[in-house]
Amino acid sequence: MSITLTILGCHSATPRINAFPTSQYLEINNSHFLIDCGEGTQRQMRKYKVGFSKINHIFISHLHGDHFYGLVGLLATFGILNREKELHIYGPKGIKEVTLLQLKTSQSHANFKIIFHELVSKKSELIYEDEKVSVKTIPLNHRVYTNGYLFTEKEKSRKLHTENIRNYKEIDKADYLNIKAGKDIILSSGEVISNSELTIPPPKPLSYAFCSDTSYKPDIISIIENTDLLYHEATFLSDRKDLAKKTKHSTTKQAAKIAKEANVNQLVLGHYSGRYKDISLFKKEAQEVFKNTELAEPGKVFSIK
Amino acid sequence: MSITLTILGCHSATPRINAFPTSQYLEINNSHFLIDCGEGTQRQMRKYKVGFSKINHIFISHLHGDHFYGLVGLLATFGILNREKELHIYGPKGIKEVTLLQLKTSQSHANFKIIFHELVSKKSELIYEDEKVSVKTIPLNHRVYTNGYLFTEKEKSRKLHTENIRNYKEIDKADYLNIKAGKDIILSSGEVISNSELTIPPPKPLSYAFCSDTSYKPDIISIIENTDLLYHEATFLSDRKDLAKKTKHSTTKQAAKIAKEANVNQLVLGHYSGRYKDISLFKKEAQEVFKNTELAEPGKVFSIK
Repeated sequence: MSITLTILGCHSATPRINAFPTSQYLEINNSHFLIDCGEGTQRQMRKYKVGFSKINHIFISHLHGDHFYGLVGLLATFGILNREKELHIYGPKGIKEVTLLQLKTSQSHANFKIIFHELVSKKSELIYEDEKVSVKTIPLNHRVYTNGYLFTEKEKSRKLHTENIRNYKEIDKADYLNIKAGKDIILSSGEVISNSELTIPPPKPLSYAFCSDTSYKPDIISIIENTDLLYHEATFLSDRKDLAKKTKHSTTKQAAKIAKEANVNQLVLGHYSGRYKDISLFKKEAQEVFKNTELAEPGKVFSIK
Repeated sequence: MSITLTILGCHSATPRINAFPTSQYLEINNSHFLIDCGEGTQRQMRKYKVGFSKINHIFISHLHGDHFYGLVGLLATFGILNREKELHIYGPKGIKEVTLLQLKTSQSHANFKIIFHELVSKKSELIYEDEKVSVKTIPLNHRVYTNGYLFTEKEKSRKLHTENIRNYKEIDKADYLNIKAGKDIILSSGEVISNSELTIPPPKPLSYAFCSDTSYKPDIISIIENTDLLYHEATFLSDRKDLAKKTKHSTTKQAAKIAKEANVNQLVLGHYSGRYKDISLFKKEAQEVFKNTELAEPGKVFSIK
């Protein structure tokens, strides 16, 4: 049970010498996801040793260039590397047409199938699940249709409470499957032993919420409540609250307020405007509202267990 | 009279940590051109201090991703930087549709006009000229429609040969415009003084030939003959001559043979396949055929005067 987030890029607007547009690599219980894919993402993946062949699912928050201009290059590289596994891409309606035209124009012959899941709903919806993890959208409020994504581990089954089980000599290994399946045990005396006595609850499922570009939007709180790790954009310090509102971005304090009210464990800030030279101010300001705040930086890893 | 070429990227296929796809910045007599624009070009431009606002003309050789995937990001950045000047883009048919769809999808509102010059001819043609420089296509032979570009300074007018002029007291400043315009002077005695006696020929116009991806194609020699600086791709060493033929690329020795037979002054190699760790072998091998060979490397500058 673990979630590991690697920041590949976390700056806004345009790639610069030491500023890389949004992209993140998320590993949950050996499932591997790429979130957003600004220009240069494939180079950042190589730099931080993200295995290209591990990625089967890519989630794009919105179709501003700093969140998807690196996608076509990554797909073309997958083709050059002779990828055969199918690839799922989740993102706003429109992503399929532009991506396919780019691949066709550049005659990038892919031997692998690309399955697009185009999103249009303005309500949170379950868009992916496997046996270990589920992904729900977090509808955001930006200048274009934008979703964040909530990644949540599936709840594991209860474990055997071997110590308690030993108190009942009548219960043997043949019963274990039933106990694991949640059943009570009826002894020959007719006494019912409650499943809760014979098992230990599984650890709380971990979760990660990615909240890409958005204005301050408190109605996401009910979706991301109690999440372990929240990435929330903070393009501006509070001095530019008006500009944040105008461009539908957030300030440090707004992001921190969301984190506090959603009762998350840790907040990670990113998407810093290029106007700020010293990003440590983002952390300082957010911590006035929410103490457990960290800064996204390229190559930085956040692990929760 | 000078040409300065700055290599921004010179590796083939995919961007890697220390490998950057094709892009070059060319300055000729204070005119500024960008040639090809692989992913990450705008970051390389910042790294090597190429002023974004100077670029008014972009030449794309062909529509493989490693030669144009960085274009849309650069255009979007121009928009963010509030560019107003119109921009000319030269490249194969298809470049307009894909670029406009990308800009539309990402809602990159450009306040500047983009003028596309889509190329379809398989013959060398003059596609650009101003008072200082002209640009002709160099039709190449690759897996898709591809052009190289020949940049040539305009020939300047002859200069006054002040020493010789002084021998004729009758010739005064009122005659200088006529002399500069190439006219002979008739003295009052009826004697004709030839213009060639009164003027000095201008320096030979400098030229730069960019030969992007191509198989060995000797019929470009007549176009690039006597050019000062030739960039010619050499994707492979001679050990992979068969693979070069199959993928329509060149080997070092093929590039060097073109340079030698075209009697160019200097050859610059690039577009190295990622399979080679030691690119110094490219230079060594080419020099067996053509001595004045150099290697393209990111940030390297070639100046001719």
